[in-house]
Amino acid sequence: MDITKIPIKNRKDEHILLVSTENIESHDTTWLEYVKFVHNTLPEINMDDISLSSEFLGKKISSPIIIGAMTGGTELTKKINAKLAKAAQKYQIPMMVGSQRVILDHPETKDTFSIVRENAPDVPIVGNIGMAQIASSANFEYVNQIIENINADALAIHLNVIQEVIQPEGDKEFSGTIDKIRALKNQINIPLVIKETGCGISKEIARKFIKIGIDYIDVAGLGGTSWVAVEYFRAKKYNEESKMDLGKTFWDWGIPTAASILEVSSVIDNSSNTKIIGSGGIKNGMEIAKAIRIGAEHAAIAKQFLKVALEGQNSIEKFIEKLLRELRITMLLTGSKNVEDLKHAPIVISSLLKEWLEERKIDFNRY
Amino acid sequence: MDITKIPIKNRKDEHILLVSTENIESHDTTWLEYVKFVHNTLPEINMDDISLSSEFLGKKISSPIIIGAMTGGTELTKKINAKLAKAAQKYQIPMMVGSQRVILDHPETKDTFSIVRENAPDVPIVGNIGMAQIASSANFEYVNQIIENINADALAIHLNVIQEVIQPEGDKEFSGTIDKIRALKNQINIPLVIKETGCGISKEIARKFIKIGIDYIDVAGLGGTSWVAVEYFRAKKYNEESKMDLGKTFWDWGIPTAASILEVSSVIDNSSNTKIIGSGGIKNGMEIAKAIRIGAEHAAIAKQFLKVALEGQNSIEKFIEKLLRELRITMLLTGSKNVEDLKHAPIVISSLLKEWLEERKIDFNRY
Amino acid sequence: MDITKIPIKNRKDEHILLVSTENIESHDTTWLEYVKFVHNTLPEINMDDISLSSEFLGKKISSPIIIGAMTGGTELTKKINAKLAKAAQKYQIPMMVGSQRVILDHPETKDTFSIVRENAPDVPIVGNIGMAQIASSANFEYVNQIIENINADALAIHLNVIQEVIQPEGDKEFSGTIDKIRALKNQINIPLVIKETGCGISKEIARKFIKIGIDYIDVAGLGGTSWVAVEYFRAKKYNEESKMDLGKTFWDWGIPTAASILEVSSVIDNSSNTKIIGSGGIKNGMEIAKAIRIGAEHAAIAKQFLKVALEGQNSIEKFIEKLLRELRITMLLTGSKNVEDLKHAPIVISSLLKEWLEERKIDFNRY
Amino acid sequence: MDITKIPIKNRKDEHILLVSTENIESHDTTWLEYVKFVHNTLPEINMDDISLSSEFLGKKISSPIIIGAMTGGTELTKKINAKLAKAAQKYQIPMMVGSQRVILDHPETKDTFSIVRENAPDVPIVGNIGMAQIASSANFEYVNQIIENINADALAIHLNVIQEVIQPEGDKEFSGTIDKIRALKNQINIPLVIKETGCGISKEIARKFIKIGIDYIDVAGLGGTSWVAVEYFRAKKYNEESKMDLGKTFWDWGIPTAASILEVSSVIDNSSNTKIIGSGGIKNGMEIAKAIRIGAEHAAIAKQFLKVALEGQNSIEKFIEKLLRELRITMLLTGSKNVEDLKHAPIVISSLLKEWLEERKIDFNRY
Repeated sequence: MDITKIPIKNRKDEHILLVSTENIESHDTTWLEYVKFVHNTLPEINMDDISLSSEFLGKKISSPIIIGAMTGGTELTKKINAKLAKAAQKYQIPMMVGSQRVILDHPETKDTFSIVRENAPDVPIVGNIGMAQIASSANFEYVNQIIENINADALAIHLNVIQEVIQPEGDKEFSGTIDKIRALKNQINIPLVIKETGCGISKEIARKFIKIGIDYIDVAGLGGTSWVAVEYFRAKKYNEESKMDLGKTFWDWGIPTAASILEVSSVIDNSSNTKIIGSGGIKNGMEIAKAIRIGAEHAAIAKQFLKVALEGQNSIEKFIEKLLRELRITMLLTGSKNVEDLKHAPIVISSLLKEWLEERKIDFNRY
Repeated sequence: MDITKIPIKNRKDEHILLVSTENIESHDTTWLEYVKFVHNTLPEINMDDISLSSEFLGKKISSPIIIGAMTGGTELTKKINAKLAKAAQKYQIPMMVGSQRVILDHPETKDTFSIVRENAPDVPIVGNIGMAQIASSANFEYVNQIIENINADALAIHLNVIQEVIQPEGDKEFSGTIDKIRALKNQINIPLVIKETGCGISKEIARKFIKIGIDYIDVAGLGGTSWVAVEYFRAKKYNEESKMDLGKTFWDWGIPTAASILEVSSVIDNSSNTKIIGSGGIKNGMEIAKAIRIGAEHAAIAKQFLKVALEGQNSIEKFIEKLLRELRITMLLTGSKNVEDLKHAPIVISSLLKEWLEERKIDFNRY
Repeated sequence: MDITKIPIKNRKDEHILLVSTENIESHDTTWLEYVKFVHNTLPEINMDDISLSSEFLGKKISSPIIIGAMTGGTELTKKINAKLAKAAQKYQIPMMVGSQRVILDHPETKDTFSIVRENAPDVPIVGNIGMAQIASSANFEYVNQIIENINADALAIHLNVIQEVIQPEGDKEFSGTIDKIRALKNQINIPLVIKETGCGISKEIARKFIKIGIDYIDVAGLGGTSWVAVEYFRAKKYNEESKMDLGKTFWDWGIPTAASILEVSSVIDNSSNTKIIGSGGIKNGMEIAKAIRIGAEHAAIAKQFLKVALEGQNSIEKFIEKLLRELRITMLLTGSKNVEDLKHAPIVISSLLKEWLEERKIDFNRY
Repeated sequence: MDITKIPIKNRKDEHILLVSTENIESHDTTWLEYVKFVHNTLPEINMDDISLSSEFLGKKISSPIIIGAMTGGTELTKKINAKLAKAAQKYQIPMMVGSQRVILDHPETKDTFSIVRENAPDVPIVGNIGMAQIASSANFEYVNQIIENINADALAIHLNVIQEVIQPEGDKEFSGTIDKIRALKNQINIPLVIKETGCGISKEIARKFIKIGIDYIDVAGLGGTSWVAVEYFRAKKYNEESKMDLGKTFWDWGIPTAASILEVSSVIDNSSNTKIIGSGGIKNGMEIAKAIRIGAEHAAIAKQFLKVALEGQNSIEKFIEKLLRELRITMLLTGSKNVEDLKHAPIVISSLLKEWLEERKIDFNRY
């Protein structure tokens, strides 16, 4: 069986299967464990006074949590999307959909994404298309299809250069991408999100995105799902030895999530409107708080949401409530009345992350 | 069975059961292992000349060891308190009782605490009430009951914000606590101790206590009993899944004991009369010496005393003698004739604790 | 059986046997794991535009990979050399042969080396002779035999002082070696390579080689095959207890490969023509890229090539293709269009390697 | 059986039994592993030109190795002493005897020490008496007995304050010891050695010894035999629980050997004649070289010599030859023609030892 011949629709289901059943985590961590809050024994606030709410894409949201980009394109993924969207609506939290490229060639899959907007009419929904699609297009007319498909509040372009290059059939041309992104940015009327897919974004590259006015940078750093690992398991299934070799070598390639948030944060100044979404291996509400403390505006979680979505509606809701409770408690224990306060809670940065900041000449205020 | 319906009297016994039988230690340590004394091969003192004695709350004590706050309120805890008090009296070391709140609603439990004063008429005894009680009271008349109950030499207010917030039935209002503490301070005639319960106290918060003239700050840092862990095991018993989740996330929240002593110590200057009690996971006399070396005036031990108290009077006495021997030997091996000398014995601070001091801009003199 | 009586021809086969079957790796690593590339999510280049090609010894080569010095002298090694040479010719990558000293006493072994040139007529081939041979020779006439044997493009002198000194029968005289090397350098018309054999080269010693105009320094640092370990297993076989003891003590002697490349690199300035070959435990294309990033011009691999050569021609070719793919992908993921770009890709140096640079006052630009 | 009633003669045998059969090593290491020589690939010397010889106590010795202080007082220890002395004489290396106090009360044990001089007439022999004996004596007439017993070239006073204080029957008076040592120093005509017994010596204390003109400081740091551990096993044997507790608490008390050598070395300047003997857990010739590199003049080994002495004369000689070979090879691999050169060989100091030097403000030249 030739791996390149599997229709993309089934590959989506295959991904979900692998992510759910195999150990596709990177061996390296997010490095969020090297960010430690300093306990505040006298918070001087009441739990009920803590406010998690803010705005995202012009809509009020209940908390800085985003259901991360995941899936779409098949019957199975439609069900997952529907369930997650219902929860997003109920808890008023934003949601990103998985790559919508499939709807361009297979319009019959549109409903696997539009189900999200049907179930979540009032929250910000972010559309999603891969850089490869943008890079290979002469014009961006199709983007309107993507946006209209879910009545998107913003569009995310996901960058997955490593996944492309370790797949024999993947795209290998990346020249001129920043020009393409700039052109697209000028053509659409909704905000643009640039997101990595597990390798993080450096300050050098973030500067380029800030310069062309990208609205959100979603770092998607190392420490959660390794798409190289996913490809390794696919290669193993089809006995593709050389791809397996690449999988092993590049399994842990990337910038750990905490380092990447600090990288991008270090080049955002007052004159820029770019904001950070922290993501990549975030597992609980305390880690969401850490991501925000070191520079993120919102934190996105994908893998954990996929896991609970496969269990059922009730599991999704319990998981969201757990995240909210953990985030709220972390805020209370650091004396943070709101997200703005949280950004100034005292922390200690240690070990590898401290060393990274020194090596990269990133100055970060711990107070 | 609904956990909130268990009468508080039995919850005390339940705590003792859990602390004695389950692994309720934090996974993180006290970081006292990162404080290393420099051996003095030529102490130039005689063992018999070493003096451990000092004063505490206006009474002479034999050594800077305190039997930490533990329990009270039930028949079992009365027996424990009696035994510990007998030893306190015999060895002339101070003792703190557990939270006395129970006597306000259940006056019949008063003798479970007053037994301490009966058995230890001559040593300093510290009363104990939770912050939640103070915070929710319009006036502090009841405090006299607490003090009279044991003829207390001082009153400790314990802060356990994390335990409150992870319990659904716990207090969630912390606004105005410092004002309440100030008001209480002004109203009572005995010294006031502020104590944490396993998460430590930061320099920022210590400054507030120093400013209002708190007499003793008992850091009770991370590294010993994790009350979050205790709540986890209670939740497990009653199958409360969401509380179990919180337990796992916050199990190791807090400032390690060594870091917390150094934090508080760094903001005490000559103009303030506030003193430090080092506690949280301290296990032997060498660790008591370390706590003193880095800034504590006294060191309190609770869990280890509970353990020996459950074994019997003889075990308590053997344990105290062991602590005294270890402390005395550590003093001799560092050439310290008395507690004042010990505070200037050469030490080396390494690893995570060194990094913490750097990150928190805490300047500590190793000589 | 007396180990000194085994004819050198068979010792070559014995080496190959040991290297293939025993764990003869050093316990210490290359420290290349402490060099981490910063992911470039927006490389702005196409895979096809990446150029690995450069020149070596006046000949164009396809990539900065060298098949490292290995073997020769027996029928088995002749077959290995033939296979590796065929691959070198096919992929246009250079090759170093193993020590040719044996041909001086046993001219009948010449074809075990000349087979390399026969099978690789167009690529740079490096001859190889041990320092001991140079040191003990009054004149260097025999060197012409060595060069002519394979029509060498350069001659490598390998330094294996540790292997000599732990063998009772080894050379023990090293005085005047630099003068001998200088004399040899002046007498031959082809470039001279100085290579270690697993213990690395320090900056102090590199300065001496640079001063006399050595063309290439092949660091061959610690982290791959430990020849001390090989001698340990030989000693074990012949039950030579005292040599086994030395083997255990010196098993991990040397400068880790990454540290050694940085050492030598730090003393090469614009005025010197000396270039670095990075080698010692390098296992894949990403590590080749790291070696180049920190100062090497080329990277040599021996042990891994021996392993695949014993498997067959197909394995060698698959291995080379894997290395090229990994190197090319690493270059793409760091936005490096060519080897020159790769030398300026952002990296982070951590842990023991960072400490080594500080201790040795080596200033290295991470940008 | 009361441990204090065992005659001291048999306690010596008991010590040997415990040291040979139980795991009485400290858990902490010597930290010599944090001293790493930088390999010299081009030593420019011949093995035969390397000179290990120097002088000690006015006599020529073959190498900077000393057979450390061990034992005496019983028939078993007499045999051990005889064997070690024969080897000392054969290889012309110095030897220290174990504590000779026993001969003062039991003159019949004199031959268990004098056998050393009989078998080693030409090498420096160091006598040995405990500080406790010196401290409790009104005059030092008995010292002549100690010196004459073995015709000692120097006298060592061993300090074992920790061993004394954890034994109920041990000496507990240390006041005035420096005055006693000064008085003794003024009274005897042979050089005085001050030696620790496994806890190392700090720079503060070393300064005192230097000031009164002590000839040699033998650091005997942490990392080898823990005498606290030995006492633990004795206590275990006689079921002395409280001493066992102390044993566990103080098992790893002390300054690691490498740190202690650097401590003492840092306070020796040109005006002082005091020299350092490095000891405490040294296991091979490479570690001897490290001890010398960081400041020791000689290195002493006790435990390893005891082990081989119990095996037989041949084992002792093989062990000495191994040490000499390892030391000589290390010197060659660092380009050191003699012990003076070795003191300037490039090294790298890392990890805990580097941190210790920083914390203790010890400036050490790595070049």
